[in-house]
Amino acid sequence: MRDLFLRACRREPVERTPIWMMRQAGRSLPEYREVRKEVDFVTLCRTPELACKVTLQPIDRLDVDAAILFSDILVPADCLGLEVDFRPGPVLANPLRTAADIDALTIRDPQESVPFVFETVRLVRKELEGRVPLIGFAGAPFTVAAYLVEGKGSKSFSHPLRLLWGEPQLAHRLFERLTEVTIAYLRGQVEAGAQAIQLFDSWAGLLDRKLFREFALRYARRVLDALRPAGVPMIYFALNAGHLMEELGESGADVIGVDWRTELSRAAALVGGEFAYQGNLDPCALMAKPADIDDRVAAIVDAGKQLPGHIFNLGHGVLPDTPVEHLQALVAAVRKHGAR
Amino acid sequence: MRDLFLRACRREPVERTPIWMMRQAGRSLPEYREVRKEVDFVTLCRTPELACKVTLQPIDRLDVDAAILFSDILVPADCLGLEVDFRPGPVLANPLRTAADIDALTIRDPQESVPFVFETVRLVRKELEGRVPLIGFAGAPFTVAAYLVEGKGSKSFSHPLRLLWGEPQLAHRLFERLTEVTIAYLRGQVEAGAQAIQLFDSWAGLLDRKLFREFALRYARRVLDALRPAGVPMIYFALNAGHLMEELGESGADVIGVDWRTELSRAAALVGGEFAYQGNLDPCALMAKPADIDDRVAAIVDAGKQLPGHIFNLGHGVLPDTPVEHLQALVAAVRKHGAR
Repeated sequence: MRDLFLRACRREPVERTPIWMMRQAGRSLPEYREVRKEVDFVTLCRTPELACKVTLQPIDRLDVDAAILFSDILVPADCLGLEVDFRPGPVLANPLRTAADIDALTIRDPQESVPFVFETVRLVRKELEGRVPLIGFAGAPFTVAAYLVEGKGSKSFSHPLRLLWGEPQLAHRLFERLTEVTIAYLRGQVEAGAQAIQLFDSWAGLLDRKLFREFALRYARRVLDALRPAGVPMIYFALNAGHLMEELGESGADVIGVDWRTELSRAAALVGGEFAYQGNLDPCALMAKPADIDDRVAAIVDAGKQLPGHIFNLGHGVLPDTPVEHLQALVAAVRKHGAR
Repeated sequence: MRDLFLRACRREPVERTPIWMMRQAGRSLPEYREVRKEVDFVTLCRTPELACKVTLQPIDRLDVDAAILFSDILVPADCLGLEVDFRPGPVLANPLRTAADIDALTIRDPQESVPFVFETVRLVRKELEGRVPLIGFAGAPFTVAAYLVEGKGSKSFSHPLRLLWGEPQLAHRLFERLTEVTIAYLRGQVEAGAQAIQLFDSWAGLLDRKLFREFALRYARRVLDALRPAGVPMIYFALNAGHLMEELGESGADVIGVDWRTELSRAAALVGGEFAYQGNLDPCALMAKPADIDDRVAAIVDAGKQLPGHIFNLGHGVLPDTPVEHLQALVAAVRKHGAR
């Protein structure tokens, strides 16, 4: 297997910088849009053959160094009996707003409520035939809670934030349950064959350091601590966390994901300790001409070479209308600059 | 006049910490909602008697230490001949997307295109009868451009960001024009009687440090440099700028606004130099019971006392459904803890 990605996660020597891209499977690929002409997003996530197919598309098309399960961080809401619609962002018919809503949640075994996820993982591992490793993932408890309480995407997520301030004990009860679900969900992915996991905390950046520690980091750490015995590399990615860098090192992750806002060298200085880093080209940079972004790529790759481990990635997901040729040019640029 | 606010901006001694709140005039006040039953938002902004009335409401109701002009950062789009609708967020019928769109913009004198703003300022000064100072404001060129190019509010503002990456020279042409408009617009406010100005860079936090310097800070600084001879204190508020603190000190402002994410002491250490600071209670904290936020207020006020100057404010605007009693309790808490 081409295991550059796994070695970089473990801070072992690599002959070149590995690369994969958040949302590498998705609307930027014409072959994905073809699949979506036939099925909606939810059906795609719930159908192992199709989810496997789109998981593999960027491996074939872009020759990246890792595959990531095609799914959504709200899929495990099924394990709490919550229905999430996608139009195209997640929308909950009944957001969690009251103590009654939260205390009524019962946890179902992910193996029973979302078996298709584990089946997809098994299928992808089989179809990959060892070409590159497969990354499993989940949303961190705070971020999943943000959607479940707000009921949809939002700029300010004021409903979950006012829950933290106004009813902190109730918020903790919700996070406890989500932590339990997330652990079982990720364990299931690893048992099915995921060779690394990423925990996405996309909305943690809304919190100041005190709230981040109390409501986000604490539960992310609990998830990662529980997964550590599984023995796979673990990535924690908190978006917009420039003000939280010192805290990220306490997440229990092996790899710290960094968005495009903070330079890798600066992130590493602030985080401290011995970690591998993943990131961090601005996804909007891929809208520039490939020649124009080459020096940005070189700067990130060079900064990464100074770190104990570096996996090249974007600082956030691929934008849907990014030209495929630009994605291919990015992979080529990382190959060129990333050789050791 | 109760000039605590102006003295704190100038880093002069004060007998207690002054307070005002971003969006202190607005939907959180029942008397504002009464006015809005009769007129829409745009009419309110364009009618000096009404804009004056709602500007003064929080002075009467909350007894804050400064008034801020009731308006919107997209009002000066009128000076570029652009029509902005509010439903309730800003929506442009024709977002600026092409070189033709941007190069066709012609600048009209704000005195002719938005005379109601200056008339409102004159009226507010008269009605205030010197009780507290009046703050004028504008959006910084990058942030106004973000709306004009995106065409509406957005989580990612991917259209303006891809303009920066894909067509930087065109972006600069747009920023040049917006800078010119903003200078004339703020000069007009000061000439009409505004005793301080705040420049809002609400979306600057989307940028990494390099892009922030090139596309946001540079033009904000140009605006503030041009206004300096007017002799009024100048506040620069970039939201979500935890990763940009070192840069904020180069904005040319007297006062650095800080959102809730970064502690004031930390912000001051990163910014360096001699500035006054404004901030920074999380607006969501006002959803907690007043007794519960008292220690947060005390911590911010105490941190502020260690700085060369501190104006208490929220870290972002008042949330629309904040109970008025909580706003009043906040003012009382700042009074109590802020005495020197």
